[in-house]
Amino acid sequence: MQLALPSSKDPSKCPCKTSMAQPGKSVDMTTVQQWSDGSVQPMLDYLVAEEPLEIRVNGAALSVTMRTPGSDLELAAGFLQTEGIIRDRSQIEGIAHGPREKQAKNNVVEVKLAAETEFDAENLRRNFFAASSCGICGKASIEAIRVRGIRVPNPAFRVSPETLCQIPERLRDAQAIFERTGGLHGAALFLPNGELVVVREDVGRHNAVDKVIGWALLNGVTNLGNYLMLVSGRGGFEIIQKCLVAGVPLVASVSAPSSLAVQLAREFQLTLVGFLRGRRFVVYAGEERLNLSPAQLVPQGP
Amino acid sequence: MQLALPSSKDPSKCPCKTSMAQPGKSVDMTTVQQWSDGSVQPMLDYLVAEEPLEIRVNGAALSVTMRTPGSDLELAAGFLQTEGIIRDRSQIEGIAHGPREKQAKNNVVEVKLAAETEFDAENLRRNFFAASSCGICGKASIEAIRVRGIRVPNPAFRVSPETLCQIPERLRDAQAIFERTGGLHGAALFLPNGELVVVREDVGRHNAVDKVIGWALLNGVTNLGNYLMLVSGRGGFEIIQKCLVAGVPLVASVSAPSSLAVQLAREFQLTLVGFLRGRRFVVYAGEERLNLSPAQLVPQGP
Repeated sequence: MQLALPSSKDPSKCPCKTSMAQPGKSVDMTTVQQWSDGSVQPMLDYLVAEEPLEIRVNGAALSVTMRTPGSDLELAAGFLQTEGIIRDRSQIEGIAHGPREKQAKNNVVEVKLAAETEFDAENLRRNFFAASSCGICGKASIEAIRVRGIRVPNPAFRVSPETLCQIPERLRDAQAIFERTGGLHGAALFLPNGELVVVREDVGRHNAVDKVIGWALLNGVTNLGNYLMLVSGRGGFEIIQKCLVAGVPLVASVSAPSSLAVQLAREFQLTLVGFLRGRRFVVYAGEERLNLSPAQLVPQGP
Repeated sequence: MQLALPSSKDPSKCPCKTSMAQPGKSVDMTTVQQWSDGSVQPMLDYLVAEEPLEIRVNGAALSVTMRTPGSDLELAAGFLQTEGIIRDRSQIEGIAHGPREKQAKNNVVEVKLAAETEFDAENLRRNFFAASSCGICGKASIEAIRVRGIRVPNPAFRVSPETLCQIPERLRDAQAIFERTGGLHGAALFLPNGELVVVREDVGRHNAVDKVIGWALLNGVTNLGNYLMLVSGRGGFEIIQKCLVAGVPLVASVSAPSSLAVQLAREFQLTLVGFLRGRRFVVYAGEERLNLSPAQLVPQGP
């Protein structure tokens, strides 16, 4: 929440780096009461918008997700890829918002798959359910990913610790909506030299990641093996799963990962960094991509 | 993340108030590398556990959710209530973990509904999907709640701003796991005098809320109209929806709500408080429950 509009952004910035700010779409404004140490004041507040998005594939409803409006096509494309429905751009014949009908808001994305792409919505919904419940332990969840043919992401990817420490501030600078609402998660791709490539925001962290991956898919970035992903907040199982499917070799977050996220990262040798704050971070898996100098290693105390 | 175990808790505390800490179950430990300003040190770290839970009703699989193990029966009971499958305790004939079979971990909860409770798992899964996608705008999402017969929660509930300001610290004191992992969301019920009644934690904020509501259901607390719910992090649509179904009249969070959460709270006159930090908070809906003295009202500036 912030009650003044942020100053205008640097116009030299590429649109992909200025998040997805779409006034009147991603952000709502409303009057609220602020209580402060005994006094009450009415004021205007920005709210992060949250609305359902229905993703339809070949005319059948596949999924409904609560999301922040904006970058909807990227969200749908990224969702289809990270859920294993498509592997590349060529399998999408068409992708567009649905007809608006009577509503002012457009919360449907229609995807037409290329003719040779196998797809059965009813069967897929059943399989989503079956896949996640088979065996029903963390090991089975990881097994379900293994059988999808996911491979170890780019083993040659390297990034320096110094570069890692610089990227959270670059994500914050680029997050247009967060400044105003305080309610949004961000996800961003960076090059190994620390250059920001794309940033997306959403009420759901997994949606922000899908938007970033969908941006790559729709913009001809066919190999994410040379990028790292930074997410705000916590790195959970689903975030690591999505990044693995997209081939991202390094995931960093400013908070803690979960146990299953760490297991999954270690199994597939993805580099997982947590608590990336200031001049510190914790490496949970895949430290070989971080160029940690052996001379820097401090022996463990007694 | 914290590398030393917290000091032992006050043994006089009721178990319901000491969260759900179950060593070896809710928390995992692993070796990680900490990079700090150029030097690298291996150390032990606590991770919040994340595993799938399958909820089975009358023998049929209904849902799989990623959750932090612990309070699984409460999570299942709360989920059934907040999803509208049951209304009260009497509709549960039995609830227990499933047979362990070959696995060390037990990630299945079996619920047997009372004979007269209507339930059709396949139909319900279809309806879950249909309900959330009908109309597919925020208005339709709210309409879907309206048709479920949800009423305005206890209009007579009152809490003072001074009491509100005290409860976040009480939640933090009671959160056993968060201290160690830095990765958990908490949800807690409080009485209007600020007394903590129950606290639960989970990787998912909505799971923490379901666990609290399920605790009430399973422990004979039949009316949540005299309690307020505090959640860590952000107050989104699903949190407000769950609290409305359970009859909670006031939801407070330490961060920002989403636009749809505010719309829903205003529609059903639930009191929604955000940014509850220190001696400040913002009221988004239902200010009449907060005993804001008219004398405190500061006129809006020019």
